[in-house]
This record gives sequence, C-alpha cells and structure tokens, in this order.
Amino acid sequence: MRVLVLGGDGFCGWPTSLYLSDRGHDVTILDNLSRRNIDNELEVQSLTPIRPVGERLRAWHEVSGKQIGFVNLDLAAEYDRLVRVLEDLRPEAIVHFAEQRAAPYSMRSVPAKRYTVDNNVRATHNLLVALVETGIDAALAHLGTMGVYGYGWSGSAPIPEGYLTVKVPTPDGDLEREILHPANPGSVYHMTKTLDQLMFAFYAKNDGLRITDLHQGIVWGTQTDQTVRDERLINRFDYDGDYGTVLNRFLMQAAIGHPLTVHGSGGQTRAFIHIRDTARCIEIAITNPPLAGSAVMVLNQITETHRVADLAKMVSEITGAEIANLPNPRREADENDLVVRNDQFLALGLNPTTLSNGLLEEVTEVAGKYKHRADPTKIIARSVWRKGMETAEDLITELPAADN
Amino acid sequence: MRVLVLGGDGFCGWPTSLYLSDRGHDVTILDNLSRRNIDNELEVQSLTPIRPVGERLRAWHEVSGKQIGFVNLDLAAEYDRLVRVLEDLRPEAIVHFAEQRAAPYSMRSVPAKRYTVDNNVRATHNLLVALVETGIDAALAHLGTMGVYGYGWSGSAPIPEGYLTVKVPTPDGDLEREILHPANPGSVYHMTKTLDQLMFAFYAKNDGLRITDLHQGIVWGTQTDQTVRDERLINRFDYDGDYGTVLNRFLMQAAIGHPLTVHGSGGQTRAFIHIRDTARCIEIAITNPPLAGSAVMVLNQITETHRVADLAKMVSEITGAEIANLPNPRREADENDLVVRNDQFLALGLNPTTLSNGLLEEVTEVAGKYKHRADPTKIIARSVWRKGMETAEDLITELPAADN
Repeated sequence: MRVLVLGGDGFCGWPTSLYLSDRGHDVTILDNLSRRNIDNELEVQSLTPIRPVGERLRAWHEVSGKQIGFVNLDLAAEYDRLVRVLEDLRPEAIVHFAEQRAAPYSMRSVPAKRYTVDNNVRATHNLLVALVETGIDAALAHLGTMGVYGYGWSGSAPIPEGYLTVKVPTPDGDLEREILHPANPGSVYHMTKTLDQLMFAFYAKNDGLRITDLHQGIVWGTQTDQTVRDERLINRFDYDGDYGTVLNRFLMQAAIGHPLTVHGSGGQTRAFIHIRDTARCIEIAITNPPLAGSAVMVLNQITETHRVADLAKMVSEITGAEIANLPNPRREADENDLVVRNDQFLALGLNPTTLSNGLLEEVTEVAGKYKHRADPTKIIARSVWRKGMETAEDLITELPAADN
Repeated sequence: MRVLVLGGDGFCGWPTSLYLSDRGHDVTILDNLSRRNIDNELEVQSLTPIRPVGERLRAWHEVSGKQIGFVNLDLAAEYDRLVRVLEDLRPEAIVHFAEQRAAPYSMRSVPAKRYTVDNNVRATHNLLVALVETGIDAALAHLGTMGVYGYGWSGSAPIPEGYLTVKVPTPDGDLEREILHPANPGSVYHMTKTLDQLMFAFYAKNDGLRITDLHQGIVWGTQTDQTVRDERLINRFDYDGDYGTVLNRFLMQAAIGHPLTVHGSGGQTRAFIHIRDTARCIEIAITNPPLAGSAVMVLNQITETHRVADLAKMVSEITGAEIANLPNPRREADENDLVVRNDQFLALGLNPTTLSNGLLEEVTEVAGKYKHRADPTKIIARSVWRKGMETAEDLITELPAADN
C-alpha cells in the first residue's frame, strides 16, 4: 500500500513509518520538522539522541533494505505543494499526525495558543480540501485524542467508540439518535481535535471522503521492533513539562533520581497505549477503512486505563523513587473514573501490549542510558491553564554528581 | 455602553452599528472591508449604492450628531493591533460579525473554502485569546447561524435554544444530560460556525469569558429607521448567486422582471428575521449577557419560518413574477419541516417584525429604485456543493430595455 505519513518525524509518526515500511508498505513521510523546532524554542531536547531525518532514513535503508521517501513541507502553509505531492504520489492511505500535540504547550502562551489552533485547523482543512480537489480516494487515518470526550461526563457508562446513542424527547415520544459524543476538551490542544471532528464529519458527508479518527490515549514506551535495530533509528523521548507524558516522565524521573511529579492527588484516571500498539493500530485502521459515503469511523486507540497515583506508586515500588504531589497546573477534576470501549480494534485483530514490568524496565533502561542528556530544570510542568495558577519550584536543579 | 462592532461595515453590522449609536451607545466599528473586496473579486456590487465607510460615518454624524469610531483592521491577521485596540477602547460589549458569511461563496472554489475556514476560525480565536490576555471582561455577542443545527434531525421536536436535553443510557439507567445541540452544518461556512461554538464553550469554561451565540435565520429587508435618514447611510443589498439570500433575491428578481429562482421543489423550510430585528436582538443580547463562569448563552435570532416555495408564491402573487424551479446547487434535503424556539428573545422584550406586505413593498421599492445597477448575469447561483453538479443557464442576460 502506498502510504503518506504526515508528521512522520515525530514521536508517534516515526515508529509508525518504520513499522509500516517493515510490513511492506511503500511509505513517504511528509513533515516540516516542527517538533524539532519547538525543542529549540523550549530549549530542551529529546532525552534520546535523535538523528537528522536524512540520517534516520539512510540508517533504515541500511538495516532493512527499504526506502522511505521524505518531503519537507508545512501542511498548514503550503497548500499548492501539498496538491502536487498528492498528485505525484497518489497515496492509497494517508496517516495524519501533523498537528501540535501537547496540551501544556497549547496553554503556555498567547503565541502557543494561536499557533496550535492555526496550525492544527489549517493542516487538517488543507488536507481535506486537497483530497476533494485532486479526487484522490485515499483512506485517511487521523490521530485524535481521548481528550475530546472529557472525563466523567457519562457516569458509569463507558466511553463509546465516537458515537453515542441518546434519546431525544419530542412531542411524539422519545426519538433514538446516534450522535457524535459531546465534546468536552480540556485544553486548546484538545479543542483543536474536536474542531477536526466536525471538519471530518462535514467532508465525509459532503464529499464522501473515507476517514477514520483514532482517539488515542497517552502513549508510553519509546522503542519498537524497528527502532531498536540501530541507534540511529531511536525514537524521541520527551520528559519536559510541556511535551513529556505521564508514565514515561515517571520512568525518566526515577532514572535520574527526581521525585515522581504527581499533579494534585493523582486521582485522574487516564487511558494508555504502548507505542508499539500505536503503530499496529494505524495499520489496522488504514487496511480497514470505512466505505465512501459512510460516517467517519471513530476508534478508541487505547489498551488500558490507570489512575495516575497508581502508576506513580507502581513506578516507586519498582525503582524506589519518591513521589511528590505538586499543584496541578491544569483546570481539571481532581478525580475521575474512566471506562473506554475499544471493541472494534480488538475485533480487527489488535492484541494489546499492556503494562508489564519487562516493558517498564525497557523504558527505564533507555532513560538510564541517556540520563546525562537531561536538563532537570525542564521537568516541572509550568504551563498553567489560567494566569496566576500556582506551580512548583524545581525539585532538583542539577543531575546527581555520580551521574554526570 | 462602549460597544465594539467587529465587521460593522457589512450587511448586518452597519445597520446594527447605527441602531446602537442611535440608542445612545458609544460605538466603534472594526472592519477590514473584506465584504467590499469580495464584491470586487466576484465582479458584482450591492444593488444599493453603498458609500465608502468614511462618508457613511460623516453622514451619520451630520444627521444624528453622534460619532462612530472606525478601525480598519484584519481580525484574523493583526493580533497585536487588536490587543492595542481593545486596551485603548476597553469595550463593555463586543459584537462579532467579522466572518465570511455566505454558504455558496464558501463552496465556490478551493481558495474560498480555505479562506472561509482560515478567516473565520482565526478571527474568532484571536478575539478570544485577546480577551483572555487583556483581561477585558466584555459581553461578547457572536453571530452564529441556524445552519449549525441542520434540518430535520429531531423529528417533530422544535429546535431548542442551543442546548438539548437528552437521555444517555448507562448500566445504572438513563442519565439526563444537557448537551450542545449536535452540529449538522450544510456548507463550509456553516461548519465554521460549529467550530466557533466549540471554541466559545472552551473559553467560557476555562477562562470565564461571557459569550452569547446568536443563531440567526435568513435576514431580509434592507432599510432600518437609521439607514433611511440619508441616502449615504443606505444598507447593502446583495442579489447575486453567492451573497444574495432568498427573500430579498425574490423581491429584487421581481423588480427587474427576472423569474423567481427556486432551487429544487422549494420544499425547504427556513427561519427568517427582518434586518430591523437583527439590530434589536443584538442590543438585547449585549445588555443581558450571561454571568462569568456560565456556559455560553445561545439564542435563536429568528422570528418566523417559511417554506421557500410559499415565499415564491407570495412574491409572485404580489408582483406577478414567474417562478422558475432550477437545479439545486446545494446538497440538502429537498423538503424539511422546521419549528424553532425563540422564547428567550421574546421574554427579553423582542417584539417581532414579521412578514407583511408593507415591508415587502419597501424592499421592492428599494430594488426598483436601483434596478439599473443590477447585472442579470450574476443572479443564477453557480457555486455547487460537489464538482459536476448541474446549474441553470442565465434566464435573462440583459435588463429589460424599458428599464435601462
């Protein structure tokens, strides 16, 4: 299958591109390297030493014999070039990771809020318009987020796969209707994914585009069967307060002797998926697309749910790290339950990689190997949801001497 | 009240600005004249001879003794200047008309689709971010559209005022929840108003902004008690296939001896409001804002509903014009019923101006007076919802000789 991976240089995009290439697909990456540029802006770097994209692709060719194409293109800004790329490649499937993906970054500042909306909305809309204009009938799989649903809205009912059946009272009695699950985003970033949903619904309805929206949980892990094959193929590992995500951050914090930073009580329950399963889910999605004329297919790309405090406790027990309960920079409920349906992925053959000591140790090993690259002053989350909200001081400002 | 009217040079913005000024408010218009520029692009002009904005404002000062301020600013592009304007003026209320507002234009071409999304989303988001950044606690009233609801979704139940109470089945029985009415937009333009809704919901929740979203029906009429006071104050009158709206178009068509152009069977039922009531509703909205911390207040800015075929028949009976049933360039149901709640506006004191022969004649007179300005080759709607859809030929290509 000819697959175009938009945002294929990022944390999910890169291992997905390698996985798809390894599975025999003809992969081209389109990326403007914005994730690397944001590292520059934030004065932080991936804990793992990621190589320039050209070097990554040469290394992949060396170890696998396979070619992955690369186009440096800003999806949000370069519409005419996008059309030419689509017409040249005529992809059968398109995977759309090309959005600013960090909630804290999206709340960090005025420019970051505006960039997140402008970039994400334009990237998605340009893609949809270009597919209509070129008439390319590719299966489009987009990375959404579990955060579109919000938390705690539907009581004991599990989060459905995108659509909710409700009863609407009318003068003639209740009417049963299937609706897109009401949006309740918790940040500007999450909000952009709810805007994407409405754009997808319109273009599926008006133009018959075939779209799958994948509402992903928090991704953990760093290596896949492909990225381990050469150090030059290593995946990103974000540990900073804006881009680092909870489980990987705990494991990295433990590796450098930093307390595990729990926001508030840690009563938040979140959905998780291992990076290996992200790649697998994407292949399942693009090989099982909806028919033209169908509504957008929505899948919950998650394999398990955990309470943040429980994850901290587990990592603390494995590693001996302390736990620090810090002020929460987000506006969110201190506690929530979460049950999520992922029946369709299971039916389509996903065999979930769930939390295990072995996989946790793999992440801890990666973090330990590269801990000298960490800047401990970048760990505390300081992007607050409203001006004036309290954040913690740095808990350590230098790496422990023995580690330097 | 200090009121900033974004988009105050347009068809609804101009008479609203004059009305608010006449009512004693201190009005400033912010507009980038995009509507006039789109006239240039489409090679069409308002049937009525609208004057440059500076002349309009001087004329208003002459006839009323009141000053209206003007700032030429692109809300979607000039964020920093917007912040300075807000800090200088410190408005107590903001009326947001500053979006591309024609459904056919939004479906016309790739650039028009992209412009509509980019402009409308950025304009709204810039405004929201600027209000958060400056801490200006203004009542914000935004012009939405009845088109966010779609048609025929809820059977015999009337369209509610924004929110719908539904029953969500859970393992513990039905849960009653109030949700934003599911979005079902019929064009890229309507879609942008559904995106606005989600942005408003987020910024009301996260930042306590006080927002009223006014889902307006099709506006008809052209003059108000203010615009009639001097010919230099005359309001726009759009009759072309992209910007003209149904009832005004029929009246203009009758005035120039053009058949009344009904798309399909004319079984579409739509909601209407007279331009005088638009202005009144805006004042009601900004003087009755929601409290900080409340959800977005949603009001249906409509006064009556009519079937398009019935309107054509009525205009035909008054004027003797023929009716032409043309292919529908839109993808929409050929027929729908529509009942709309507008209880809150009625409770807040709106005394509706409904369809009457007197008011129809006023429009016909305006159309008759300026019919020599019409270009009959601009009348047929040719922006199609999907490539290849059929449209009609021009029904007349020159104005009747006696009229030239």
